[in-house]
Amino acid sequence: MRISLAKHAGYCYGVQRALKLAREATNSSTKPIHTLGPIIHNPQVVESLQGQGVNAVSSVDEVDSGTIIIRTHGVDPKIIKKVKDCGLELVDATCPFVAKAQQRVADLVKEGYNIIIIGERNHPEVVGLLAYANNQATVVESAKELDNLEIIGRTGVVVQTTQSLANLESILDVLLTKTKDLKVFNTICNATSQRQEAAAELSQQVDLMLVVGGKNSANTTRLAQICQKNNQETYHIETDDEIDELWLAGIEHIGITAGASTPDWIVQKVIDRLEMLAGES
Amino acid sequence: MRISLAKHAGYCYGVQRALKLAREATNSSTKPIHTLGPIIHNPQVVESLQGQGVNAVSSVDEVDSGTIIIRTHGVDPKIIKKVKDCGLELVDATCPFVAKAQQRVADLVKEGYNIIIIGERNHPEVVGLLAYANNQATVVESAKELDNLEIIGRTGVVVQTTQSLANLESILDVLLTKTKDLKVFNTICNATSQRQEAAAELSQQVDLMLVVGGKNSANTTRLAQICQKNNQETYHIETDDEIDELWLAGIEHIGITAGASTPDWIVQKVIDRLEMLAGES
Repeated sequence: MRISLAKHAGYCYGVQRALKLAREATNSSTKPIHTLGPIIHNPQVVESLQGQGVNAVSSVDEVDSGTIIIRTHGVDPKIIKKVKDCGLELVDATCPFVAKAQQRVADLVKEGYNIIIIGERNHPEVVGLLAYANNQATVVESAKELDNLEIIGRTGVVVQTTQSLANLESILDVLLTKTKDLKVFNTICNATSQRQEAAAELSQQVDLMLVVGGKNSANTTRLAQICQKNNQETYHIETDDEIDELWLAGIEHIGITAGASTPDWIVQKVIDRLEMLAGES
Repeated sequence: MRISLAKHAGYCYGVQRALKLAREATNSSTKPIHTLGPIIHNPQVVESLQGQGVNAVSSVDEVDSGTIIIRTHGVDPKIIKKVKDCGLELVDATCPFVAKAQQRVADLVKEGYNIIIIGERNHPEVVGLLAYANNQATVVESAKELDNLEIIGRTGVVVQTTQSLANLESILDVLLTKTKDLKVFNTICNATSQRQEAAAELSQQVDLMLVVGGKNSANTTRLAQICQKNNQETYHIETDDEIDELWLAGIEHIGITAGASTPDWIVQKVIDRLEMLAGES
């Protein structure tokens, strides 16, 4: 049995940076440290941080003192103001690429564009982006939602950083027929597109594809969707425990990829377990 | 035998307006009237205008006195200045939708965008658009030309008014991977897209499709290409003389469309000839 890891997989720059900021905060403060929501969409990492005294809260109101870490997905700027107004310590771990997308939304507001945000309506990154448009933007998840959109004027598009290029393209195909004046900021981050391309490539070459990462992670789920299209034997798992021996029957070549919020040690445990199972059979 | 005419076919607003301006010029002036190049891309109409004393010239230098009509495709603004400087009468029959595209190019120049013009490199409309970018824009005919394009900065796109939406879409799919900041003016005119959609629809329903219009007409040629994809029995003809009786053998249903520069009387002659041939058989 052969195991291949996708050329681009696992932690991206924004996640690495956020975890580094969280570590620095725990090392330099004796007061409680909180993240507003899970710092990244990986339950195992969040659990490990809890062991170091970093706890996720769902609102600034829950915190009396200490530090609040803004997670990679970013937030409504009003929340950042509130953290400061409450005299709490702020660590802004918003991914720089998300911050750039937020800035693009703010610029489009200033220039008077109608704004379309392509992404998942309830994802924290999109909720944050929407706040930069004073909640006046239209969120679009897929091209078919545009069928009933009325002809619109000058329109600016910003994209959730973890969207697939294919979805952006199919939405633009429809928008082009709705407005004559379209500004598109392709804010899909390179880490996302590299991981998606590498996953698409590898999933076509293997008998079985494992996508490792949080079930609540948008970018990992998207990787699984992309692999599934190419290879029906695709499984999205969070940890090695979920591997079912039966999956491996008759399998020669296994491909592995991991979301941008999946740590290397979880991927390594998946590889170890696969090698153990291969040795047993 | 049944004959169906496409729901949208024949003269568009810009062509009607240009011919009206030419008629008015011939009626109101006793001096010679010239068009700079053929006023529209239909040889039969150009010939008919010659009969009324309107002759096409290829350069302002060829004209000593009288009127110069700028045709629907528009020109380099330097040429308009030259006509005025030479003391000639100017009739600007540039299609208003082309004029709008020219203005979009000029705006993008002012805003400091890299400019891409999607269209046919040697078509007079594209040559005119390029002049509004001081010949500093990149002309792109198809997506495959972008393969070797280096990563570029802020990029603005303007489209030849008679391009197909499908070509614009496939070029944008590639541009999205080349730049993060893309402004798209979909300057394809409604007449073009309506004629293309109606032609695509009708060509799928008939046994034989006739596309009537100038062989030198970009929009008519594009209609023929679109029909050809759906129906191998597609013929691009300029006049009824070109209809080959053999085409009609075993044909039950004939579809007809006509380019934006094709006059009704030419289409009517095609229908008359088809009905005559059907009566004979």
